[in-house]
Amino acid sequence: MTDISRRRLLTTAGTAGAAGLALGTAGGAVAHAAVAAPGAPALTTLGATAHPFHGAHQPGITTPAQTHGHLVALDLAPGAGRREAADLLRRWSTLAARLMAGEAPPDDTDVARDAGPAALTVTIGLGHGFFDATDLAAARPAALAPLPVFSNDALDPARSDGDLWLQVGADDALVAFHALRALQRAAAGTAAVRWQMTGFNRSPGATARPMTSRNLMGQVDGTNNPKPTDEDFDQRVFVPEGGDPGWMAGGSYVVVRRIRMLLDDWERVSEAEQERVIGRRKSDGAPLTGGDETTPVDLEATDADGGPVIAANAHVRVSAPETNGGAAMLRRPFSFHDGFLDDGSPDAGLLFVCWQADPLRGFVPVQRKLDRGDALSAFVKHEASALFAVPGGAAEGEYVGQRLLEG
Amino acid sequence: MTDISRRRLLTTAGTAGAAGLALGTAGGAVAHAAVAAPGAPALTTLGATAHPFHGAHQPGITTPAQTHGHLVALDLAPGAGRREAADLLRRWSTLAARLMAGEAPPDDTDVARDAGPAALTVTIGLGHGFFDATDLAAARPAALAPLPVFSNDALDPARSDGDLWLQVGADDALVAFHALRALQRAAAGTAAVRWQMTGFNRSPGATARPMTSRNLMGQVDGTNNPKPTDEDFDQRVFVPEGGDPGWMAGGSYVVVRRIRMLLDDWERVSEAEQERVIGRRKSDGAPLTGGDETTPVDLEATDADGGPVIAANAHVRVSAPETNGGAAMLRRPFSFHDGFLDDGSPDAGLLFVCWQADPLRGFVPVQRKLDRGDALSAFVKHEASALFAVPGGAAEGEYVGQRLLEG
Repeated sequence: MTDISRRRLLTTAGTAGAAGLALGTAGGAVAHAAVAAPGAPALTTLGATAHPFHGAHQPGITTPAQTHGHLVALDLAPGAGRREAADLLRRWSTLAARLMAGEAPPDDTDVARDAGPAALTVTIGLGHGFFDATDLAAARPAALAPLPVFSNDALDPARSDGDLWLQVGADDALVAFHALRALQRAAAGTAAVRWQMTGFNRSPGATARPMTSRNLMGQVDGTNNPKPTDEDFDQRVFVPEGGDPGWMAGGSYVVVRRIRMLLDDWERVSEAEQERVIGRRKSDGAPLTGGDETTPVDLEATDADGGPVIAANAHVRVSAPETNGGAAMLRRPFSFHDGFLDDGSPDAGLLFVCWQADPLRGFVPVQRKLDRGDALSAFVKHEASALFAVPGGAAEGEYVGQRLLEG
Repeated sequence: MTDISRRRLLTTAGTAGAAGLALGTAGGAVAHAAVAAPGAPALTTLGATAHPFHGAHQPGITTPAQTHGHLVALDLAPGAGRREAADLLRRWSTLAARLMAGEAPPDDTDVARDAGPAALTVTIGLGHGFFDATDLAAARPAALAPLPVFSNDALDPARSDGDLWLQVGADDALVAFHALRALQRAAAGTAAVRWQMTGFNRSPGATARPMTSRNLMGQVDGTNNPKPTDEDFDQRVFVPEGGDPGWMAGGSYVVVRRIRMLLDDWERVSEAEQERVIGRRKSDGAPLTGGDETTPVDLEATDADGGPVIAANAHVRVSAPETNGGAAMLRRPFSFHDGFLDDGSPDAGLLFVCWQADPLRGFVPVQRKLDRGDALSAFVKHEASALFAVPGGAAEGEYVGQRLLEG
């Protein structure tokens, strides 16, 4: 009964199709359309949206960012080796596929009962230490080498790194908690939580701005992100078939950083100065060189006095692919707010999550430049950092990481 | 421009009315319908829903529970007295009215720019200490006397009590954070954050269940809540005109408790045993004596052996108004999840928020009975507690608490 009631999913009223019909959408999401039991109210598309777990890439990378996100690192338990790790990845894959389809797992806690999948995605990553614990050090990607130390970093080791990583996103907080808890339970005895962070994005429909969200500094953030329609998108974000190591084909590398915003300092600065720091207008995200949000920044433009319109240390200049040998990464962050610090300032900022085929040609060169010369550095603090290899998506009947663990 | 763009609000596509027309709805909410600028996408009702700040009662009491909630206690700064407190309540009232209408305050952080009010509510309460700091001890309601000590309490003083209280709720996380931060900034120099808690509820549309949410134990929770349509609803929840003290007319008392759920213990118990603890079916919230969620519990029913169907210590029996001299309160909680504790268990549970005209005829008698004989007590831990007087709503041009501070 549970599976049936959890799957009593309708698209928005008036668009219900025939029982069991799956409707593909542009974003790859599937809204299950099934005929509801008589009298049962319909879910909206928010509840009914289901993303596929199986595919060439794992979900949660190009999936539209959800309202709620959990980032969790786990460490393998002492004694857990390759077999236990493979069993865990198999259990997680089975569970994730089930949860993402809106089905209840066995022995369920019922927290998401009656709910649709609500755009749930589960993404699984492997950290540097995973390969030692599993005697797979020879298969460890060179790209998992520890990130360089940046001068502005103030990293908390307890909230950094980890053997395994889960990213859970959903447009409903109970659906997200339910999945996180189910995944934690499935790891019992094999891996334990090392750190966990919770974040959020705008609710669909809360704003008229269709694409780009604001961050907690009030800035439009993410305008220059690579788009899946870009010719070189796959090349930038995903490891190609035949890449090195072979088991990472279709995979990606994720850098996760807890970036606290020094909001007391930031909000003391005038809007004009904030715009100079970023290089974009605060109102609409347009470059200070004119146009609208999507207009390319003109880094060469000069003002009446012959000085650059975009300051030498403006964030958009220092982070621009043009000034970093084309380095670019797909940023898919969540905002966070964990209360207030003792001095009264909000413990809030950005859970920075960025995706690339190679961190040495994505995050690292950009962050090196930002670390040296970004005007924004004075207003943020990098407090935690982690890097994970995120294997390609699992085909039906396979589990994430199978090519590594059984290769 | 900011105000105009923030107010470019449309109800769902197809129902747009004439410019500036305010559409009343059953719940008292108003969806601003204005003609959007050409090409601007429409907000959905999620973004466009606005609740009125002014009225007989403060918002956030009978308002449908929002997806995101912040509960914050503040203490008055040393030296802040009656005048400073009155100024603060005036600033907060002006700000809350503005934010709830979807308008940007002066010197805005822009975090909610482009967004609609998203059902934002701001509720203001006064704690026991407020009346000492403001030389108003003679006007302190008897109902604000400290709550009795309950044997199962494990209260953290640093997360309990407080001179002032704010409840911020919204259906968008950035709108909620924006309002919280604006209110904190408006208090600078007069009051500082003592504690803050963040919670969540289901997203609208995530579930087909229309009325009652589930908590993180997976239980349908809140079925027996008083309904605004009940004949004695106002009498239970709000202080009447001519009550004592007179300045609390239209007001209410709120008890706030951080109730951590011992989920590791709870989830080890079978579903049948969980249902015995509560007295309701887990699947749909129906009483174990039959019917559906809304069917009254039959406390007299016996099974084949002559024993009670609803156990003597079942939560529904011990908390039932019939067994508490009619005591009832309006519960309007949020779930919380603040990561994991050192033992790996989730630091998660319920931000219990309950409303009543008199705590001595609402929360206190019910909690006394629960404390002694509730089977659920073994699975929860009360970690923080606070009680606030929430004055009646402010009329246009007035501020919350004006009758007290200028009486």
